Amino acid sequence: MTFTVRGFAALDTQSDLVPFSFERREPLAQDVEIEILYCGVCHSDLHTAKNDWGGTVYPAVPGHEIVGRVTRVGKNVSKFQVGDLAAVGCLVDSCRSCSSCQQDLEQYCLNGFTGTYNDPDKHLANQRTYGGYSEKVVVDEHFVLKVPSHLDLAATAPLLCAGITTWSPLRHWNVGSGSKVAVVGLGGLGHMAIKLAKGLGAEVTLFSRSPNKSQDALDLGADHVVISTDKQQMQAVRGEFDLIIDTVPYVHDINPYVATLNISGTLVLVGYLGPLDPFLNTVPMILGRKSVAGSVIGGIAETQEMLDFCGKHNIVSDIELIKMQDINTAYQRMLKSDVKYRFVIDMASLKNG
Amino acid sequence: MTFTVRGFAALDTQSDLVPFSFERREPLAQDVEIEILYCGVCHSDLHTAKNDWGGTVYPAVPGHEIVGRVTRVGKNVSKFQVGDLAAVGCLVDSCRSCSSCQQDLEQYCLNGFTGTYNDPDKHLANQRTYGGYSEKVVVDEHFVLKVPSHLDLAATAPLLCAGITTWSPLRHWNVGSGSKVAVVGLGGLGHMAIKLAKGLGAEVTLFSRSPNKSQDALDLGADHVVISTDKQQMQAVRGEFDLIIDTVPYVHDINPYVATLNISGTLVLVGYLGPLDPFLNTVPMILGRKSVAGSVIGGIAETQEMLDFCGKHNIVSDIELIKMQDINTAYQRMLKSDVKYRFVIDMASLKNG
Repeated sequence: MTFTVRGFAALDTQSDLVPFSFERREPLAQDVEIEILYCGVCHSDLHTAKNDWGGTVYPAVPGHEIVGRVTRVGKNVSKFQVGDLAAVGCLVDSCRSCSSCQQDLEQYCLNGFTGTYNDPDKHLANQRTYGGYSEKVVVDEHFVLKVPSHLDLAATAPLLCAGITTWSPLRHWNVGSGSKVAVVGLGGLGHMAIKLAKGLGAEVTLFSRSPNKSQDALDLGADHVVISTDKQQMQAVRGEFDLIIDTVPYVHDINPYVATLNISGTLVLVGYLGPLDPFLNTVPMILGRKSVAGSVIGGIAETQEMLDFCGKHNIVSDIELIKMQDINTAYQRMLKSDVKYRFVIDMASLKNG
Repeated sequence: MTFTVRGFAALDTQSDLVPFSFERREPLAQDVEIEILYCGVCHSDLHTAKNDWGGTVYPAVPGHEIVGRVTRVGKNVSKFQVGDLAAVGCLVDSCRSCSSCQQDLEQYCLNGFTGTYNDPDKHLANQRTYGGYSEKVVVDEHFVLKVPSHLDLAATAPLLCAGITTWSPLRHWNVGSGSKVAVVGLGGLGHMAIKLAKGLGAEVTLFSRSPNKSQDALDLGADHVVISTDKQQMQAVRGEFDLIIDTVPYVHDINPYVATLNISGTLVLVGYLGPLDPFLNTVPMILGRKSVAGSVIGGIAETQEMLDFCGKHNIVSDIELIKMQDINTAYQRMLKSDVKYRFVIDMASLKNG
């Protein structure tokens, strides 16, 4: 049993995204149907649309920073009622039985979580999951988040990926009052890392390659900005940071940042997938018990914790609201890093377009 | 005020170590004088003697796995009495005021600890510290360890470097009952890692490149041996280990080992100082929240904890006892990994030689 939903899809690697109608399952007993109000635009959307990582199956409907309102619930749903605000992030399912799932680490499901888009759909044969660039989504309530009602809903959407991706390492590495945190890169992830680390009570530094982002970083709440191309400034922060969140999505030399870690500190990569070129030097790691780690998004319980925290501390993303029909221009601007700091699609535009 | 001590020294990068007499300070108020009974032979001794790392000042008297008996104490010494057993490891001093020293992490002293050999001597101008290949040593009591009296003294000596180097990461990364630990490399460090991890209650696996070390590893207490050149065996332990202690002292590909880490697991390098060639791949690190870290020796309090633990669990090193005069042959055999698993010098041979 399915129903038809309108959305926007990439049909191949080259073309613009275009209007596209597709089927979603009728809500099952444990499902929540959400009318999508806002959907954030993540770099992963662009990578998937363009098949940058391989593995894209077309048509592809991106979008995994979803905020909306519940329109239907299955008979066994207990967490949500029709009319509730609700959110969906990067995951819509996982095996729920492996050791990761049992520890609320669905993002590390040993049998592979089901991504919100471009993953095999467990319910509709031979179909991929379709994401948030669409009118409605149907998701098992376990993977649906509650949204603090007083937050700006559009600006809340990016918390579902950019927010949780930076929140999870902040929590895993126990950042709190007295912690010194540095952030590498000031994009969607970086600006959320600054806000969330500040919210947790840390002293926050932005590493930036150029001085022209300094005032923006300070405005977002950073305590300090270090220009990473300035050797004197880098020398001045040697041994300084307990945690560095490196959001840069392309290959870059992390050795200069490792040098700025405190004893027992960790640099956690959340943006760049691939070989660490140039070679990572173990000498400062061994002589300072330093770690280089990776982290991806977060589990469902942790995502709810983050949303609740953001509700309490009035933390949302800085966004630029766009129409669905502007998505291709938005992608072009993202490639030039021309966005402060996240595009969010106003889904009303889909109906009106 | 000094007195003359006999020992063995390297006089240049090429020659054999030879008998060498030098001055030590008369014990100051907080100093302990120790008659050295046994001194372990660490790879660092060899590297220093040959100036493999640069920085060796000749003459160089190696040795930092020292066990002996207290022969004199300064007037303010409270921890030791004449006749007590005592041990000295890799450190004989540190700044004692930096944040690391205040946390009992003297091994990460931000002002640089004073190594037991080949570091500037804080008391004797223009002299380097001289290590344990000698009759006696004089050390501030803060850096002198107590030795459980029932342990084999010769076999206790390697605990002071090989033991603490593997103990410190086991403790820092919270290994205990239920932990799965793997060890890469079966030398002085590797064999201690197996014994100590087993002592802490972990399930222990040795990674070995060749099957001929399997029985030895099992005899030392390992639960399993995985032949790292066998792809099927490596595949079978994917995602298995909470902590991997990599003791291999030369450059090698750690990516296959990272694949065997459990979610949130850590591979800690304790042997290899230099660039990680080939490139470390971040993909499994990010998708499994895995860390690559380094660690060096341990602090004084932690070293005492390790010695006490070894006393309680009757853990010592497997050793081959040699005479001081055999040190050059021992070095040659070490270069061929021809030792199970640590040479220890019987210092009585120095007097009799």
